[in-house]
Amino acid sequence: MSDSAVLAGHLQELRRGTVVMAALATLHRPTYGYALLESLDAAGFHVDGNTLYPLLRRLERQGLLASEWNTEESRPRKFYSVSTDGEALLTDLLAEWESLHASIERLR
Amino acid sequence: MSDSAVLAGHLQELRRGTVVMAALATLHRPTYGYALLESLDAAGFHVDGNTLYPLLRRLERQGLLASEWNTEESRPRKFYSVSTDGEALLTDLLAEWESLHASIERLR
Repeated sequence: MSDSAVLAGHLQELRRGTVVMAALATLHRPTYGYALLESLDAAGFHVDGNTLYPLLRRLERQGLLASEWNTEESRPRKFYSVSTDGEALLTDLLAEWESLHASIERLR
Repeated sequence: MSDSAVLAGHLQELRRGTVVMAALATLHRPTYGYALLESLDAAGFHVDGNTLYPLLRRLERQGLLASEWNTEESRPRKFYSVSTDGEALLTDLLAEWESLHASIERLR
């Protein structure tokens, strides 16, 4: 592996764990996949659709997201929103995140 | 999967990416595996030896850590320390971490 591949791998690993948290936090408002991708991008989370869309389906299977089809527009779109269980997970993830942040600050 | 297994999985994923950063930050001073485990634990990173020891060997293979055997004590121990490349990676990881933290704050 080249140095830049090593770097990219480690950065990727650091980002991966934050995507679920970012998605749950954004889905307080029902949002369809592509709009979520844009919101995350605007917030600084550059996630690929090939990563995000399977993740949304997985979170729905786990009961952390609910979904509803909106068929009022010309093109039907599936809107996701965070469920009660998803809110509980988000609270735990944010608490863990703050704790990790404090730990890293102690080590710096 | 039970709810608690789902939760544990997501928390685990969030922590995973931070362990490399925490290890590199701690290894400014040459340290052997078990002592590093204890330092990380004291800082709030509860890493298992089965996770940490293979990680140290991987980081050494990637040139991010250097190691030296200390044979002065009754039991020889391998001391790891961060290399120049490791320092550069740590700087990048910390910058990415700060950027992710700012992004999460924007979404909350």
